[in-house]
Amino acid sequence: MKKNLLVAQSGGPSAAINATLCGVVEMGLEHPEIEKIYGVKNGIMGMLSERFVDLTELLADESARQLLCQTPSSALGSCHMKLSPWEENAFEYEKAISIFRKYNIGYFMYIGGSDSMDTVHKLSEYCRNHHINDIKIIGVPKAIENDLPETDHSPGFGSAAKYIGTTLTEIACDCNVYALPSITVVEIMGQDTGWLTASSALARLNGDAAPDLIYLSERPFSVEQFLFDVREKMMEKRSVIVAVSEGLRNEEGAYLTDSLQNRVEDEFGHRILAGVSRFLEEILRQEIGCKVRSVELNLMQRCASHVASATDIQEACTMGREAVRYALEGGSGEMACLRRVSEAPYASEVFFIPVDQVLNRVKKVPDEWINEEGNDITQEMMDYLIPLIQGEIPCAYENGVPVHFHLS
Amino acid sequence: MKKNLLVAQSGGPSAAINATLCGVVEMGLEHPEIEKIYGVKNGIMGMLSERFVDLTELLADESARQLLCQTPSSALGSCHMKLSPWEENAFEYEKAISIFRKYNIGYFMYIGGSDSMDTVHKLSEYCRNHHINDIKIIGVPKAIENDLPETDHSPGFGSAAKYIGTTLTEIACDCNVYALPSITVVEIMGQDTGWLTASSALARLNGDAAPDLIYLSERPFSVEQFLFDVREKMMEKRSVIVAVSEGLRNEEGAYLTDSLQNRVEDEFGHRILAGVSRFLEEILRQEIGCKVRSVELNLMQRCASHVASATDIQEACTMGREAVRYALEGGSGEMACLRRVSEAPYASEVFFIPVDQVLNRVKKVPDEWINEEGNDITQEMMDYLIPLIQGEIPCAYENGVPVHFHLS
Repeated sequence: MKKNLLVAQSGGPSAAINATLCGVVEMGLEHPEIEKIYGVKNGIMGMLSERFVDLTELLADESARQLLCQTPSSALGSCHMKLSPWEENAFEYEKAISIFRKYNIGYFMYIGGSDSMDTVHKLSEYCRNHHINDIKIIGVPKAIENDLPETDHSPGFGSAAKYIGTTLTEIACDCNVYALPSITVVEIMGQDTGWLTASSALARLNGDAAPDLIYLSERPFSVEQFLFDVREKMMEKRSVIVAVSEGLRNEEGAYLTDSLQNRVEDEFGHRILAGVSRFLEEILRQEIGCKVRSVELNLMQRCASHVASATDIQEACTMGREAVRYALEGGSGEMACLRRVSEAPYASEVFFIPVDQVLNRVKKVPDEWINEEGNDITQEMMDYLIPLIQGEIPCAYENGVPVHFHLS
Repeated sequence: MKKNLLVAQSGGPSAAINATLCGVVEMGLEHPEIEKIYGVKNGIMGMLSERFVDLTELLADESARQLLCQTPSSALGSCHMKLSPWEENAFEYEKAISIFRKYNIGYFMYIGGSDSMDTVHKLSEYCRNHHINDIKIIGVPKAIENDLPETDHSPGFGSAAKYIGTTLTEIACDCNVYALPSITVVEIMGQDTGWLTASSALARLNGDAAPDLIYLSERPFSVEQFLFDVREKMMEKRSVIVAVSEGLRNEEGAYLTDSLQNRVEDEFGHRILAGVSRFLEEILRQEIGCKVRSVELNLMQRCASHVASATDIQEACTMGREAVRYALEGGSGEMACLRRVSEAPYASEVFFIPVDQVLNRVKKVPDEWINEEGNDITQEMMDYLIPLIQGEIPCAYENGVPVHFHLS
């Protein structure tokens, strides 16, 4: 009997998560044993309220799938939701299974970060414990912060890294024009991990002079050492550019910005939440006194599809395809991972691991990939990063701005 | 006798100012009556200290000039300097003229904003008053904020507008994924003018749902009305995106952020300079209470060459070329301007006006191009903007990041 394929997206947006969706749909369309391909809006939350969309026709056309691939964020929407353990709330699980039955779902692909993998684990464990063997559930990772363990890297990271590298080359040009000394602090995503901040170093590949100092979340941050480092750089060059992780903490483990959050109010009592770059900007202005600016790469670093990495988009798509293939072969309760199989030329392959191996674990930047002084990265980190940002996707523009896929 | 051509850049960086430099050099190379083409580093300030660079060989190669065209910011550096009136400080002018003589300069092209045009005016007036007729001085505008009068628009603006439109399409995708209500406030450059903020509306051209509300510097801003507008939008849709000019002022003409600047301190007494978007973010959080984010497009909006407007780059280059032609024909003390000569298809031409016509004047957004409620733009504004962002420049990447021209 033919079965239907269900796909959902969850977690924070990225430039590659729709490429994974595209891969899932492609593989579904290629397999006659799959009848319909359903998407569900807003992840597991939308699944439980049956927010189904039939993608079989909507994405039958290759041009629609191409447009989807260059659309940032999650075309199917996202959610913030973790299931309770099934021993505590069996109702949710029974409901999920009854919905799977109603739509004749044989394969469920859940694309997302660690919370989504938790859902994959719980649902598949429930099935296993209840001898439900005809619903195969596979997780496909997406994590711009690259913090999922076991996989060499996660889709979305390469495109974010490419955006960060590209933007830093341009900021370097911008900051170098004046004859007067200046400091620019660039704040990059990564509450607990410095992968994205490290990728600012990619800006140096073609000779652009940025960044001069790089501070990752993994190492304790000392304001005194920071001021010393900056002063030293300023003796060498006029314009100093510093890349910092948003999640910098002091030696006691407290976020740098903690000291600020409850103290900064305007005259109406409105609290101002200042990020770490703004905090450092002010310290530099007071302590060094030259022109200082702070820049947050903010949402742009995760949604700038117009400068996506072709390697990232292609791998994201392949992972979606392979996940469906693996489910068709009987796999369930597992997560797709990437393994580097060759360095020059770079090549990767997809493999699968039981999804519980990634739960409650965070992949940090290895300490030896950070320099001794804690203010830069090492060549090993560069070698890791470079292949992931290679290649450009020809982004389709109409009327001067990119065209995106919209689920009506 | 053959003369040499001198070119300098000044003012804030943009994605198009190097294209104008490229046009100047190209035209210089094409004219045998010009012997050498000198650039000078750091504008008029560098000129007075003879920071000359011979560009004749450096940019003889078309591939070098192409690379220059895709390099953001000013390859020759910039400065913040206005000359004193020559009646007060003749020494500076005498020095300038003696340097022109030393290098046999017959033509000086100064690319920049209003301060640079002031320099063009003063230098050429000095020459006129001292019967120096063999040094022709022409200003070529660059103003990402598009605030120079007389010209239909200024080079650099189109590329910044294209970056803003593109980025807003991506932010729209990013912000629309969750089922919960949210507000995103995007802060865009423009202390006194709203041209760049208005260009956020370009994101709507292909159906992306952003921005929902647009507030320009030109209209007084009322926090009460703003909260009313946002609440009204939230009844229609889940995710509301607001674009605001950095220079919003209240009805008394005071900057919104003024109330904040002297009050916001951390525990060490460091003042935090919060921008208008951060200010509005906190007001929204307190008054409406849903998820609120603020995003500053910051330096990226003026230096994102990888997403430059082909129309802008081509016009910037043409203005550089035409400025040299005009000087060769004897013009001096004038500024290049653009005039729209056709709407469909769009076409522009270069003309020249006495540079003093643009001094101390700011081109604001016409009031009738802002809607009655002051929270959006009109179709006339869209019609003005659309041609300026058309076309993409194939940006050259190496190692996964853009390649830039570097003056060694």
